[in-house]
Amino acid sequence: MSDLLGGMFGGQPDWLAALLDVEAALAAARAATGRIPPSAAELITEHCRRDLFDEADLAERAAAHATPIVPLVEDLRALLPSGVADAVHRPATSQDVIDTALMLIASRTLAAADADLDACSTALTELAVAHRDTPHLARTLLAAALPSTFGRLVDVWLAGLADARAALSGVALPVQLGGPVGALDDPALVAAFAAELGLAVPAACWHTNRMPIASLASALGMVIGALGKIAADVVLLSAFGEVAEGSPGGSSAMPDKRNSARSVQILACAHRTPGLVGTVFAGLPQELERAAGRWQAEWRTVGDLLALTSAAARHGRVLLTELTVDTEQMRKALP
Amino acid sequence: MSDLLGGMFGGQPDWLAALLDVEAALAAARAATGRIPPSAAELITEHCRRDLFDEADLAERAAAHATPIVPLVEDLRALLPSGVADAVHRPATSQDVIDTALMLIASRTLAAADADLDACSTALTELAVAHRDTPHLARTLLAAALPSTFGRLVDVWLAGLADARAALSGVALPVQLGGPVGALDDPALVAAFAAELGLAVPAACWHTNRMPIASLASALGMVIGALGKIAADVVLLSAFGEVAEGSPGGSSAMPDKRNSARSVQILACAHRTPGLVGTVFAGLPQELERAAGRWQAEWRTVGDLLALTSAAARHGRVLLTELTVDTEQMRKALP
Amino acid sequence: MSDLLGGMFGGQPDWLAALLDVEAALAAARAATGRIPPSAAELITEHCRRDLFDEADLAERAAAHATPIVPLVEDLRALLPSGVADAVHRPATSQDVIDTALMLIASRTLAAADADLDACSTALTELAVAHRDTPHLARTLLAAALPSTFGRLVDVWLAGLADARAALSGVALPVQLGGPVGALDDPALVAAFAAELGLAVPAACWHTNRMPIASLASALGMVIGALGKIAADVVLLSAFGEVAEGSPGGSSAMPDKRNSARSVQILACAHRTPGLVGTVFAGLPQELERAAGRWQAEWRTVGDLLALTSAAARHGRVLLTELTVDTEQMRKALP
Amino acid sequence: MSDLLGGMFGGQPDWLAALLDVEAALAAARAATGRIPPSAAELITEHCRRDLFDEADLAERAAAHATPIVPLVEDLRALLPSGVADAVHRPATSQDVIDTALMLIASRTLAAADADLDACSTALTELAVAHRDTPHLARTLLAAALPSTFGRLVDVWLAGLADARAALSGVALPVQLGGPVGALDDPALVAAFAAELGLAVPAACWHTNRMPIASLASALGMVIGALGKIAADVVLLSAFGEVAEGSPGGSSAMPDKRNSARSVQILACAHRTPGLVGTVFAGLPQELERAAGRWQAEWRTVGDLLALTSAAARHGRVLLTELTVDTEQMRKALP
Repeated sequence: MSDLLGGMFGGQPDWLAALLDVEAALAAARAATGRIPPSAAELITEHCRRDLFDEADLAERAAAHATPIVPLVEDLRALLPSGVADAVHRPATSQDVIDTALMLIASRTLAAADADLDACSTALTELAVAHRDTPHLARTLLAAALPSTFGRLVDVWLAGLADARAALSGVALPVQLGGPVGALDDPALVAAFAAELGLAVPAACWHTNRMPIASLASALGMVIGALGKIAADVVLLSAFGEVAEGSPGGSSAMPDKRNSARSVQILACAHRTPGLVGTVFAGLPQELERAAGRWQAEWRTVGDLLALTSAAARHGRVLLTELTVDTEQMRKALP
Repeated sequence: MSDLLGGMFGGQPDWLAALLDVEAALAAARAATGRIPPSAAELITEHCRRDLFDEADLAERAAAHATPIVPLVEDLRALLPSGVADAVHRPATSQDVIDTALMLIASRTLAAADADLDACSTALTELAVAHRDTPHLARTLLAAALPSTFGRLVDVWLAGLADARAALSGVALPVQLGGPVGALDDPALVAAFAAELGLAVPAACWHTNRMPIASLASALGMVIGALGKIAADVVLLSAFGEVAEGSPGGSSAMPDKRNSARSVQILACAHRTPGLVGTVFAGLPQELERAAGRWQAEWRTVGDLLALTSAAARHGRVLLTELTVDTEQMRKALP
Repeated sequence: MSDLLGGMFGGQPDWLAALLDVEAALAAARAATGRIPPSAAELITEHCRRDLFDEADLAERAAAHATPIVPLVEDLRALLPSGVADAVHRPATSQDVIDTALMLIASRTLAAADADLDACSTALTELAVAHRDTPHLARTLLAAALPSTFGRLVDVWLAGLADARAALSGVALPVQLGGPVGALDDPALVAAFAAELGLAVPAACWHTNRMPIASLASALGMVIGALGKIAADVVLLSAFGEVAEGSPGGSSAMPDKRNSARSVQILACAHRTPGLVGTVFAGLPQELERAAGRWQAEWRTVGDLLALTSAAARHGRVLLTELTVDTEQMRKALP
Repeated sequence: MSDLLGGMFGGQPDWLAALLDVEAALAAARAATGRIPPSAAELITEHCRRDLFDEADLAERAAAHATPIVPLVEDLRALLPSGVADAVHRPATSQDVIDTALMLIASRTLAAADADLDACSTALTELAVAHRDTPHLARTLLAAALPSTFGRLVDVWLAGLADARAALSGVALPVQLGGPVGALDDPALVAAFAAELGLAVPAACWHTNRMPIASLASALGMVIGALGKIAADVVLLSAFGEVAEGSPGGSSAMPDKRNSARSVQILACAHRTPGLVGTVFAGLPQELERAAGRWQAEWRTVGDLLALTSAAARHGRVLLTELTVDTEQMRKALP
């Protein structure tokens, strides 16, 4: 499958690997709590490897069931001796595995993005200090307003990103383990399952209480939005000649063109975000014990939000660590 | 102006009253911190009364300036002796007054909605206790799944609403006071201003750091969504004859018709919400020191979200305090 | 009810008047097709006057039924002698009256906005002609690209608006008359009803086929978007000093400030639009014979889109008929 | 790259192949109009083959330029002798190639989906005929209303899909060829370019007049929404036992479970759609001669809408050609 745009917007998460990791963790947790022999869990874990599965075939069969878990469990069981095969996936339901895999994908993506976001925060702090007293024309509604300093604007950038990251760090990423209709009540198993994956223990089964997903989507939207505000300003200040990206992009038609390439890509990520956040909020009224459509719509939507966060952070790091400031041009703009 | 639909979706907030209250509070805060004589503040406050202003005329002049504050301050000053007139609105900018007024509107709306939400939570707790052991057919993807209890479903309703209300109670509603370009640095005045209005003190000027607005919108979306999930389930369970609203709505064409009127209205509120939440998140990249469009778009959008929260809570209270459960019909649905 | 922001974003449509007009037209159509005596229709029409109804009371009772039609028909009947009272509203259902009223509101709003849109188109044509050869620096990704002419940019503005208006003029605004469950099949009555109101005759009852609403919302979104593109460019070119609004807005804090007030308001309208369009599209999967929530969510949403179209057109007219172009400044930007 | 969910939601379009096809078609059009020798065009076309390019490397370099065209043209030129290399991509700009490729992707995706949509329409027509007189309980607001026929409901399904397909068939898919700043005026070349690709000739360069994209997105949203309405009804009627999917999906935890798998997937597609449509409409105000973010955000967004249309049509075909109707159960629901 082609992904020419993955460098700009991030790639699709690897769902197959995450789902297999979750099935393995579930088996390990059951062994850890004495429900199945350790040897069975080890055997299951050994077979939870991407290369043992035919992804295209799984994808097609997933469409017959509206879930990839039915064929995945079928194929995983077929790899195992019958006594062990039966232990696979117990006592979970599709949604347990998919919700937990989504949280696992979130956890991994955000851990990786954190280094980029740290670099952004550090670069912003340095910019703010360096330009504490750099004269700069404040513009309101994009029109010349009053003299200010560039450091003050960078402070706003920094505060926005800090607020958004604080929101994100407050989001819990819980496992899901409610069984077929959310009635499973096995705190020891849930705790062991969460421990295996490094995820949080939920207060209760959240099959159709989607607040964890809404919290996550909202915080991701804030982080992308905070970077989007910086990018919007860099594009504008670049048009005024007051700042410039360190490695501007080129043009296929104009050899001398200098584009604010990283800012533009962050803005593109930011433009795609609100619709996705809206989709997650539209998904809150999930029906009865498992939803018919709203839940399934979350998979790609939250995956996209994670990819956009990751891409925006990566572009932001390049943008902010390389940003050049033309203090002379800033001074000239003053009245 | 007509508002036939206000009973269903809530009415527009009274912006004029809120803006005047903010101008009055600003004057009071300046008096409290010794910047202007108490008598000047009192005189200003006495004239910050809706009935002294021609709202239609203000609305028209607002369109010439893209802000209602220019004509409002003009008219307020015209009511006052010149020494006092000059003290009005200082040292604020339009955005300080509007952002603070929006937070004031939020604070008032949510205080009023809280009683309805409390009633919802109490009714849910009682339903959960009463139906702890009521047999109920769990349905996943809307298809018959396994026997469960109705209390377990109500637990999910309760948890969703509790999570959403926890998110809402964690949202700070700060005043705004940054002056023309966000450079005002007067902590004593900001504290006195916040104290006058019962609002929070912000960490810094947030003219173009809109995380406070995104946090608010997100929490409102969660509350409406939590009520929406309950309403979706009530409509479905009513179709199965398992529950019924206590005061069902009638039909203009079918005398015997019984409609789940409150649930339907909550669902309508919930359907309107995601687009509005998305609009707020789309507004995060606000340009430079004050945005040209994204900020102004927040006013009605956040106002609508507050109205919808309030309306959904009011409908939810009627729905949940009156809900009837047909345990016999629930039993019949079991295999 | 307060509407301080109505000058900027347009006001709520007058639903009560529209609903009464529809009830009157239905009676007239039944008389015209010989179903009721003309005198009965006349008596009904005479009583379909806003001032005979208590809107606040209707709004409250509407909330008990999830429709304003139940109390409205009740009160209208109470004003009439019993023989005539019974003829009121027949053979319609709530949705027939509300859907038709929405189309009537659309028809009236768009007729009024058309003069503003015509003025926009005319002003654009004149600008394009006047600046056919005005040298202008083209900017791509907001960075200096190559010399072009200002007329060429205005051509793009004009083409966008023309395309959007063509889409809008292709949208049919049909009456609705399907009876309680969409089974009414009375072409003569539907034709007479449409003729009374100056609306289109639908191919079939569209109670839960919402393509007419989606087409309308989409075309409105295009018109607002076309004006939004112009406004975005005017704000940017104003920041470069190349154009200016003829009657710029002022500031409450900076006496010399000149704001692109009309452009900013158009942009605010444009920022509010995508979420509303999305809400309409989210409403397409309306359940069975009448939807529980998605339909009711359309009322305010489409009303807002109409108000925004009207407001954006009004601001656009001022903006474009007064726009000043600084050809000297444009020349200076060239390399 | 993994795409386990592609069977459910459709896969990402193959951008690399489409971009290369467009570069080849541009060369062919220039040869056809006598601008370059046919042999040069042939040589270029021969090298516009996916397997000659390193997609991962292109993706990474695209991120440095905010466009995949800069590295793509670089690599394509490197494969060719210098005289021919220079002819590559002339006189286009990045946006010309990307916009045209998007329209090519749309054209191909829709041609393929058309067979599925035809099958849906045919199946609906047959269902409507077969159940013209099948007694069926109409439900409004999901509550029992009056007796009707199932054929009447299917008529609504059919009309919705027909209206949506009519909208889609009215959407033009034009090439783009405006050169670096939209000033290219070469109708003969544009016509030849369009002819090579089987796309439409635009009235003018539409670099920042995005009405063609909005029209496309809107029509796609209608088609998905029309299928979503059918799916919503099938899920509900299945819950009442009145219809059933012919090949229901299974469960990973409940061996006897029967899920409306195709309907659920269509609903998931429909839930993802409104946010994407909203994103496209939010993109209308594209700045000056080429947008900084809004344009780039279209690529994945419109690609997703096309994938969802295609997936929903495929699921719809299975659903509608296999749908079983339990007329006895329908009869039992009547009063």
